[in-house]
Amino acid sequence: MARLVMKFGGTSVANMNRIRNVARHVKREVDAGFEVAVVVSAMSGKTNELVGWVEDASKLYDRSEYDAVVASGEQVTSGLLAIALQEIGIAARSWQGWQIPIETSDAHGSARIEAINGERIIEGFSRREVAVVAGFQGVHTASGRLTTLGRGSDTSAVAIAAAIHADQCDIYTDVDGVYTTDPRIVPKARRLDRVAFEEMLEMASLGAKVLQVRSVEVAMVHKVKTFVRSSLDDPSDPKPGTLICDEEDILEQQVVTGIAFSKDEAQITLRRVADKPGVAATIFGPLADANINVDMIIQVVSNDQKTTDLTFTVVTADFERAKSILEKHRNEIGFQDLQGATDVVKISAIGIGMRSHAGVAARAFKALADKGVNIRAITTSEIKFSVLIDKDYTELAVRTLHSLYGLDKA
Amino acid sequence: MARLVMKFGGTSVANMNRIRNVARHVKREVDAGFEVAVVVSAMSGKTNELVGWVEDASKLYDRSEYDAVVASGEQVTSGLLAIALQEIGIAARSWQGWQIPIETSDAHGSARIEAINGERIIEGFSRREVAVVAGFQGVHTASGRLTTLGRGSDTSAVAIAAAIHADQCDIYTDVDGVYTTDPRIVPKARRLDRVAFEEMLEMASLGAKVLQVRSVEVAMVHKVKTFVRSSLDDPSDPKPGTLICDEEDILEQQVVTGIAFSKDEAQITLRRVADKPGVAATIFGPLADANINVDMIIQVVSNDQKTTDLTFTVVTADFERAKSILEKHRNEIGFQDLQGATDVVKISAIGIGMRSHAGVAARAFKALADKGVNIRAITTSEIKFSVLIDKDYTELAVRTLHSLYGLDKA
Repeated sequence: MARLVMKFGGTSVANMNRIRNVARHVKREVDAGFEVAVVVSAMSGKTNELVGWVEDASKLYDRSEYDAVVASGEQVTSGLLAIALQEIGIAARSWQGWQIPIETSDAHGSARIEAINGERIIEGFSRREVAVVAGFQGVHTASGRLTTLGRGSDTSAVAIAAAIHADQCDIYTDVDGVYTTDPRIVPKARRLDRVAFEEMLEMASLGAKVLQVRSVEVAMVHKVKTFVRSSLDDPSDPKPGTLICDEEDILEQQVVTGIAFSKDEAQITLRRVADKPGVAATIFGPLADANINVDMIIQVVSNDQKTTDLTFTVVTADFERAKSILEKHRNEIGFQDLQGATDVVKISAIGIGMRSHAGVAARAFKALADKGVNIRAITTSEIKFSVLIDKDYTELAVRTLHSLYGLDKA
Repeated sequence: MARLVMKFGGTSVANMNRIRNVARHVKREVDAGFEVAVVVSAMSGKTNELVGWVEDASKLYDRSEYDAVVASGEQVTSGLLAIALQEIGIAARSWQGWQIPIETSDAHGSARIEAINGERIIEGFSRREVAVVAGFQGVHTASGRLTTLGRGSDTSAVAIAAAIHADQCDIYTDVDGVYTTDPRIVPKARRLDRVAFEEMLEMASLGAKVLQVRSVEVAMVHKVKTFVRSSLDDPSDPKPGTLICDEEDILEQQVVTGIAFSKDEAQITLRRVADKPGVAATIFGPLADANINVDMIIQVVSNDQKTTDLTFTVVTADFERAKSILEKHRNEIGFQDLQGATDVVKISAIGIGMRSHAGVAARAFKALADKGVNIRAITTSEIKFSVLIDKDYTELAVRTLHSLYGLDKA
């Protein structure tokens, strides 16, 4: 019998009416003959409420207690959905992370799944019972304490799918699939039928919010056939959504599959840094020690040939902390001036086709220049390139690249 | 080192400010040298919210899923209080029922505690760590599923106190102790310094809401020295409250210690029941089968000498169900008419002194008659008696008995 994991996020389970709607989606798949595990998030707003209390309790809160508090949100939804399923005649029971168990590292607040024992869920299938799994949470076995994976339950769903050898994992969201770019910015954006794991990973990393990065990694490693589809569809007439799959399963490969953008970037420029060996280590070492990831880096030798200007980006949340760390190391590094900007955006084009096509990025630089868009920094890799530009040009730049690579719908 | 259990109910942890106040109460005891386990309820209103969702999901909800949903309320509070304690420099960690574990029966929604392993909490004490225990919940070990004990966390607190061999268990509430009767009805009600376990058990059973019945039973069996005291006190200047203790520890024994009343009673009268052997079984058998407890019973032989009128009480929640069960068995029982009333109240006087004093109840009957209060039914036992009267006379009757037995404060 075919086995299916279905995942529903916070807006899909925001109240009892929506939970009943989710139950109807699940019933459809059970009626079609699937063995089903459903992974649910907390009701939307609940996680924020819980986090708010924790932050009110202490600014430097104990992250293991944070997990105890916050994991309760998914616990509630799992029980409610199990009842809603029973109410329409579907046998079901809720599973907390510690009951399965979903074993994780002890990195409270952002734990990584280390092992999932799928046996008890599979036993439930033999009783024709739907497993309703509380997403987002697990247990650190050695301490017996609750953990959470960082925001979201996509990763739980994909990891459960791998653990129970599911044939498919459907991630239900408030959009009906993965788009070539954000349709709110580019009305001509098209829904993609298929996206390769590698592309989806880049798109998620570079700002597309439809799937969480870690979930795509897990899906890719375990080859979990994953669909992104809409929970807003009529349960009796669902649309197929977008399949995330192996590159080989995609017949018509585009050069560029999608355009992503992230406003969550901040730029830091160090002016007139002494251009001597080892200076990069004095700059990036302390930032790495503070767990600050540096993304785009660009270095421009000054006119005097003895100093250099160094520009790089960090996520906005790390901006103030990064600046103060650099100021603290000012003497060691030896820069004249530190400048920062948060009014920037990183725009990226992603496509496996870039591997076999030269000059893809160059076309973008020209097209943006023609529109008067100034590029502050560039990074490229095998299947994507990114440009950092002024935030004001976001829509213009995204639309320009979307058209340039033939992504507009007819 | 002396060991203490402190319990705080829903209103005491209703928001972060109140939780911080609870933390200060705990700090005082830790500073005084106690090893402390704190048992907490859900934030007030939260349990009702969760129960509301469950009932919305299904009228005939699965009680094991109810438990999974509802137990989350205490989980949240335990984590928040642990953080609030850490914030003021007290080492603390939260404990869920399944982590300790608190093993219970599988009677979901009203499980009974079967065993508590106090070892891990005691280990924590050796690290000078306060244990913050989620009240109200446990785990059924064989199935690994969450359970709840029915409303309230008093029982958890007393049972934890027994399991860790605590010297004392302090139940913090929104009143400053046990009163001779409800002070909202009798302004002259006095706070009692001490109450015997047996008396407290009767008072709780007969309508005094200050402690849950089951918690008094557990305290009595395990001889847990239990205080009822106020969480509204200034944490730096607490009042002693009321001690629930062995009869022998009470020096000046009153004949009557307190007057309790319960409006949660409904009266059913069957008119002209055939007065034949076995008729009681045909009436009370089907009610017992439906788990309906019958309390006061009074039987009056009719004028015709061949039939009898039978009056008894059930809790209000069972009233409609009891009536429909009796109607269904009408032919078997053979009654002419079924009458019901919910506008009644049961008033009880409780005191260990009744054992050695005769005529205590008779004085009450006379005093009530003198005030024109009609008594519908009476029950008595070794240390209490109860009368069923019209609800309109509640305050008058309570005040009358309170004065009669010398309970009014000077």
